[in-house]
Amino acid sequence: MIVVTGDLRVAPENVAKLRDAMRSVIEATRLEDGCLSYAYGEDVLDPGLVRISERWLNWQSLEAHGQSAHVAAWHAALKEAGVIHREVVGYEAGTGRAL
Amino acid sequence: MIVVTGDLRVAPENVAKLRDAMRSVIEATRLEDGCLSYAYGEDVLDPGLVRISERWLNWQSLEAHGQSAHVAAWHAALKEAGVIHREVVGYEAGTGRAL
Repeated sequence: MIVVTGDLRVAPENVAKLRDAMRSVIEATRLEDGCLSYAYGEDVLDPGLVRISERWLNWQSLEAHGQSAHVAAWHAALKEAGVIHREVVGYEAGTGRAL
Repeated sequence: MIVVTGDLRVAPENVAKLRDAMRSVIEATRLEDGCLSYAYGEDVLDPGLVRISERWLNWQSLEAHGQSAHVAAWHAALKEAGVIHREVVGYEAGTGRAL
């Protein structure tokens, strides 16, 4: 399994403007083969900072996601809104523990 | 490294009520030895669903966090507010890729 975490910074007022584009990419992504979870949350202390968390079956499914039309549309919406910073990393998941 | 993802559901109106308690646990946790990142975000499509993402140096630092006074205070605040669902899992992180 691959666990992805990361974040994306936009101007705080752009989070509401991007909500429909986020809904589209989130809903389409959750239907993809190998997508175990996919979510965006706005930081509770830092408006405009969007926290990304995802789990994928393997690198192949994550790569296919990266080539999808809905990700291209999302990146276009982000580019139009103006993304200030973006950092997203996937890790191969080893032993897990419920916390 | 340990990557933690999870979520926590509270009544949507309780997110604002819990903000001070979240700020306290987040700020204290970020100062802990071995804490690489620690964040809460409210789901952009699902109010009341708090997405948790954390990175820790190792299991030992995460265990020490679980025993801290600030986590006890946070759990007490959550209990008082009423937590509907909570699921948090840590995974040992293998090979990573920037996405």
